[in-house]
Amino acid sequence: MRIVLIGFGTVGQGFTEILRDKGDALRRQYGFTPQLVGVATRSRGTLMAEDGLDLNALLEAIQKGHLDTYPNNPGVTRNLSTLELLEQCGAQVMLEAGTTDLQTAQPALDHCYTALAKGMHIVSANKGPIALAYPELMARASKVGKQVLFEATVMAGTPSLRLAMQALAGATISEARGIFNGTTNYILTQMEGGMSYAHALAQAQALGYAEADPTADVDGWDAASKVLILATAIFGKQLKLSEMTVRGISSITSEDVEAARAAGERWKLIARVTPQGGTVEPLRIPVTHPLASVGGATNAVTYVTDMLGEVTLVGAGAGRRQTGFALLADLLDLHRLGV
Amino acid sequence: MRIVLIGFGTVGQGFTEILRDKGDALRRQYGFTPQLVGVATRSRGTLMAEDGLDLNALLEAIQKGHLDTYPNNPGVTRNLSTLELLEQCGAQVMLEAGTTDLQTAQPALDHCYTALAKGMHIVSANKGPIALAYPELMARASKVGKQVLFEATVMAGTPSLRLAMQALAGATISEARGIFNGTTNYILTQMEGGMSYAHALAQAQALGYAEADPTADVDGWDAASKVLILATAIFGKQLKLSEMTVRGISSITSEDVEAARAAGERWKLIARVTPQGGTVEPLRIPVTHPLASVGGATNAVTYVTDMLGEVTLVGAGAGRRQTGFALLADLLDLHRLGV
Repeated sequence: MRIVLIGFGTVGQGFTEILRDKGDALRRQYGFTPQLVGVATRSRGTLMAEDGLDLNALLEAIQKGHLDTYPNNPGVTRNLSTLELLEQCGAQVMLEAGTTDLQTAQPALDHCYTALAKGMHIVSANKGPIALAYPELMARASKVGKQVLFEATVMAGTPSLRLAMQALAGATISEARGIFNGTTNYILTQMEGGMSYAHALAQAQALGYAEADPTADVDGWDAASKVLILATAIFGKQLKLSEMTVRGISSITSEDVEAARAAGERWKLIARVTPQGGTVEPLRIPVTHPLASVGGATNAVTYVTDMLGEVTLVGAGAGRRQTGFALLADLLDLHRLGV
Repeated sequence: MRIVLIGFGTVGQGFTEILRDKGDALRRQYGFTPQLVGVATRSRGTLMAEDGLDLNALLEAIQKGHLDTYPNNPGVTRNLSTLELLEQCGAQVMLEAGTTDLQTAQPALDHCYTALAKGMHIVSANKGPIALAYPELMARASKVGKQVLFEATVMAGTPSLRLAMQALAGATISEARGIFNGTTNYILTQMEGGMSYAHALAQAQALGYAEADPTADVDGWDAASKVLILATAIFGKQLKLSEMTVRGISSITSEDVEAARAAGERWKLIARVTPQGGTVEPLRIPVTHPLASVGGATNAVTYVTDMLGEVTLVGAGAGRRQTGFALLADLLDLHRLGV
């Protein structure tokens, strides 16, 4: 399977490390032999190699700071633009692992359209195109008979979408709710341990959970983007952020946390979506509630179904390897489909 | 898809009701059109109909107490033995939903072997053949190119096996642990509310969770059979009940429950399996532990993985419709494979 990787940050590198470390096992166990034929970054160069890039050399190059430091192997082309790379690399699958933009979904959306036009399947860790343009994306994909997979966009590699779309096939889901943002859940958990909001946020940033600008996390927009993705994937409804109630955790004080604790409750940033719409808001829930024990950077989703009642999945919501694994899981799905 | 159903108790009837109620939706959504061409019971008759049985009439007949009361439609053959039915019905899939026997796996195992010899795929809600004879069953199935699916055997229709074997493909599972018996979990939950063990057991029996002879549940053997199934499905290891530590809940007193409560803990019957072996035993866990909030007849499994850390699934562990749904989910898998 010939793969081109757009974006080579934490997720792209995590994925590449997994390919390097699990390559033999994947071949033996699934007959799966992926080949990375191109990598694009925004400002650290671009590589294309018809016969596949050397994964160790690639990871070394990015650690040195620029893909220019990749060895001068025969067949390597450098510094194409991302669109040129997509046009020329001859990949069967594009991995979109660039930065999420929840206003425009760009440039990821253009990457997706170009890749589909070139006959590639799409595996996206980028929430933008799925949250904002799923109907158009699926229309174009179905026209050319290609798949769009996006397990990485909700709860990292914890198979939240696979559970809803494959494992629960035959059941009807009427509601999804859960904890979809690791940063805020980590901050709330630390505040329960007595830490101030500001200190907990600084720690989340130091640990790499929260961005330098933490607005998307703490104001609820990241969780809201996952609500958009679940709405479109499960209910076929394109919601809009502007039509949703979205409240974050930045107004939660240590006193609020203590008041909840005294009442046997915990604050959690709960996202909820039904065919009628979605919300994100901090709620106090009893400590004995299943979602209350979901601590730190862990995430959880509960699907309400007709056949089984409530089905809850709890697991990692973020992380280099955990999100990289989601890309591999989607590729294995394509492999099973004969790509 | 032509289907023969062996065993027409709670699970078989639940499955038939789902087919009746979801028939149109299954056709529209998945292009799936199952046809029940035979049903066998131990003591309430047997029916075969080449063109498919009428599901409403079939459910009415079993509610009247015997399949003899099914209408005299043309093409209906009555009172074949189960093995004759399997030989003659021309089904593509056998659903084994008879009574579990954890000593011999019979007569279900013979049904499975006969069905495979006749070229049928197997979907089993019966734990016996999977827990005791999986290697031989898989060897015979692979020889004739057929599938053996058994989602119903662990956590009813909650997709515990699908999660491990499909959704987590690419990750390596090193341990599974959880709460796999609804009856004992219900009893322990009721005892926390102040009920005596005897009273809670009687209530579980009245609600249909526990059998008249509750030994398999309360002494841990039902949970242990699920450990055997997980060991074989996830690790490819055939464990033996006689080599496992299995302790049930019958010795847990109201005083034990109260002592745990006072310490902020709860008793749970925890099953655990690794490639090295398995155990079932009542353990005290903190109320804040994810498994502590799994109450009543709900079950849960935690998979420990290399790529994602811990992934936990919580959902129904028993129930007419919930277990019937597991059979449907396996059939949809076969349908996707082109059966």
